[in-house]
Amino acid sequence: MTSSERDTPPVTRLLGEFVATHPSRGWDDRVEREARRTLTNWLGCAIGASRHPSVEAVLAAIRELAPSEQATVLGRDDRVDMASAALVNGVSAHAFDFDDTHLKTIIHPAAPIASAALALAEQTGAPGRLLVDALVLGVEVACRVGNAVYPDHYDRGWHITGSVGMLGAAAACARVLGLDPAHTSMALGIAASQPVGVREQFGSMTKSLHAGAAARNGVTAALLARHGFTASERALEAKRGLMQTFSTKSDWSEIIAALGTRFEISFNAYKPFACGVVIHPAIDGCIQLRDAHHLRAEQIERVTLKVHPLVIELTGKTAPRSGLEGKFSVYHACAASILFGQAAESEFSDAIVARSDVVGLRQRVTAEIDPALGEDAADVTIVCRDGRQLNVFVAHALGSLERPMSDAGLERKFHGLVDPVLGQERADTLIAQCAEISGCAHLDALTALARPSG
Amino acid sequence: MTSSERDTPPVTRLLGEFVATHPSRGWDDRVEREARRTLTNWLGCAIGASRHPSVEAVLAAIRELAPSEQATVLGRDDRVDMASAALVNGVSAHAFDFDDTHLKTIIHPAAPIASAALALAEQTGAPGRLLVDALVLGVEVACRVGNAVYPDHYDRGWHITGSVGMLGAAAACARVLGLDPAHTSMALGIAASQPVGVREQFGSMTKSLHAGAAARNGVTAALLARHGFTASERALEAKRGLMQTFSTKSDWSEIIAALGTRFEISFNAYKPFACGVVIHPAIDGCIQLRDAHHLRAEQIERVTLKVHPLVIELTGKTAPRSGLEGKFSVYHACAASILFGQAAESEFSDAIVARSDVVGLRQRVTAEIDPALGEDAADVTIVCRDGRQLNVFVAHALGSLERPMSDAGLERKFHGLVDPVLGQERADTLIAQCAEISGCAHLDALTALARPSG
Repeated sequence: MTSSERDTPPVTRLLGEFVATHPSRGWDDRVEREARRTLTNWLGCAIGASRHPSVEAVLAAIRELAPSEQATVLGRDDRVDMASAALVNGVSAHAFDFDDTHLKTIIHPAAPIASAALALAEQTGAPGRLLVDALVLGVEVACRVGNAVYPDHYDRGWHITGSVGMLGAAAACARVLGLDPAHTSMALGIAASQPVGVREQFGSMTKSLHAGAAARNGVTAALLARHGFTASERALEAKRGLMQTFSTKSDWSEIIAALGTRFEISFNAYKPFACGVVIHPAIDGCIQLRDAHHLRAEQIERVTLKVHPLVIELTGKTAPRSGLEGKFSVYHACAASILFGQAAESEFSDAIVARSDVVGLRQRVTAEIDPALGEDAADVTIVCRDGRQLNVFVAHALGSLERPMSDAGLERKFHGLVDPVLGQERADTLIAQCAEISGCAHLDALTALARPSG
Repeated sequence: MTSSERDTPPVTRLLGEFVATHPSRGWDDRVEREARRTLTNWLGCAIGASRHPSVEAVLAAIRELAPSEQATVLGRDDRVDMASAALVNGVSAHAFDFDDTHLKTIIHPAAPIASAALALAEQTGAPGRLLVDALVLGVEVACRVGNAVYPDHYDRGWHITGSVGMLGAAAACARVLGLDPAHTSMALGIAASQPVGVREQFGSMTKSLHAGAAARNGVTAALLARHGFTASERALEAKRGLMQTFSTKSDWSEIIAALGTRFEISFNAYKPFACGVVIHPAIDGCIQLRDAHHLRAEQIERVTLKVHPLVIELTGKTAPRSGLEGKFSVYHACAASILFGQAAESEFSDAIVARSDVVGLRQRVTAEIDPALGEDAADVTIVCRDGRQLNVFVAHALGSLERPMSDAGLERKFHGLVDPVLGQERADTLIAQCAEISGCAHLDALTALARPSG
């Protein structure tokens, strides 16, 4: 061991001890509330995308393994073994790119972590309280390791949701299984050899697989550790351990400082709109003006946007030809959000992108770069045919930490995702179930509600 | 796409086309013979380690998923789903660190690739010919990608057997499934997001998990691709693809040059001794002198070794206390090999390391560094109590490409591994079955013979 290695704190062991021994609900109400919101948002995304082609494909592949029926595939009547359920639910939770974001690291924590924890908790008959504890602690592990290596690790090409998410999933699963500190550290160590995902996959189904495979790897790592499988006790921090192998930056203090008092799930954010965050400020402004002035498309002469340079670079498609391309068109997103008052997954369907009123309004949207604007800011002007000039400056888009989505907004989002799959009434019951989850003796009610036949 | 990206050959697509379209047995007899030897050596290692604690642990974890009984766990009567069988057999094949080595990259190719291909081939009723084809083509993909990134990738901390092995496993499985070029490229692309293993795990069970998880990831990648799951068509070579993300060196010519005419499995080597290769030259010399002069321990005054510097650095333990420590003691290895005429797994048991005659001879072994020696060379002198000085210079250790193990040597090794598990007669039948594998209509005979009850 070199002197610099002696100076490296034993973070694999420290995180293992923390996950195994931190008291249940050992945090304030704000953290607890964010955990429930994270869970609700994740559940809505997974159910909403439960018929997505990527989910159909991964389920078809899993069926070839003739899996046992241990755990629920959210939004469907399929049941598969718990490792496969973690995989499939991780894929569906991320498939719409509509899930939560830990903004400091761009990790989408719930897809890998909640998917792993629920599958294991359902099968083992764990109470709801344990699921929430596991989620908070799993997010803590993933996001702290993420903080330590971001941005270098991400810049190098890793998709951080899958490449550190498996650590959070393993931590959550170790907690669900009640592993002691040493075995929890082993679970983290086993997971440390299984990062998932490179950014080149963005735009393909494999992007969602990153979240799903990280979830599956977390389940199996915890099960392996439970049965005495061993890993290095320094798997994360050693010179040839994960962090120094896949990142040039490893800031250990990000892992250790205020561990157990500051909780990263507090900084989790939720997308109000079903597209990349860069165009959220413009959509937000359009909806604000629409709602304030009860605007209809035929009243509008033109829409003029001032936006951050990245908006044009990433979402500058003026004539999108599909729903997916619509997500990369600030023009479409703004037109649709004015017409429908929202920009949910339904506003990015092939049909909506091709509708004549949408196309007509889209062609009256222009955008110019204002380098002075922040990434979550936009200036929106709508000129009406009656001569009115309506303007709003969005300093921080809805869904940012400065302007988080309200509980009511999250419920509307949940309904937008879940109603088409399970109906409005069931969606309401699920929202109520999530709100009371920490008092549930087990998770059977939640998972039954998440199945069409349930 | 930048100009340098335009210059990057489309290796994901090229390898997919190659694996899907290269003719069955499209290589010379030498390649075919090496494929059979690779298969035999792998099978022996997996059966030999089938009761290893790491295998017991991984099977116990898998049993919690209540897997279907699709495929054989080699050396045991357990049957598990084919992805899990790939995982478990990958672990057992690597657990003794006695498997094959592609010396140019230090990849142990058979553990991830043959384990994946056999599990899938058994379940799908594939003929033996297809298994051999899949093995050769899978090894080709893994070792060519390995050649392209080695040594930078390995130096950074990746355990290359698992971090490129999943590509070979996916290729082999795509071939077993008969996927077309486009789907085979997708299988490689899906696998490209799932590298396994960092070197810090050496010394823990997770080292073997790298081979096993790579095998499992290969099986699932091929199944996903079959069902239409998509990945980037440039998942390997793009700027944010796997190779440039996890290695500073990416020599594309290593992948393209002589593809389909030069076969990397030709350069596969097999360990004659159940320990790290650095002490093989010394063991080889000791056994040569022992056999040539019918030496017994009590005749020996002292053994004097001249060795490469790495031998002392890596295996300098003078008083090992366990079988595992014995593998890191050149003194023990030489003493045991003189006493027993071999250095198989049995010579590295706790009991043998503690035996008084072994300890007595070990204390009469000395080693000195000779920086002029190559890594696979050693100079061995045995001074007898009757005054004779016996010497041999080993220029290339047994098991190197210059002095490959003979078929007879491989059979002895196979018996040493398999006889304790399945008995000598069964081992002989298995060797014969491997020799005739390419003519078998399916693999049921092979897998039945590999089960104690079979």
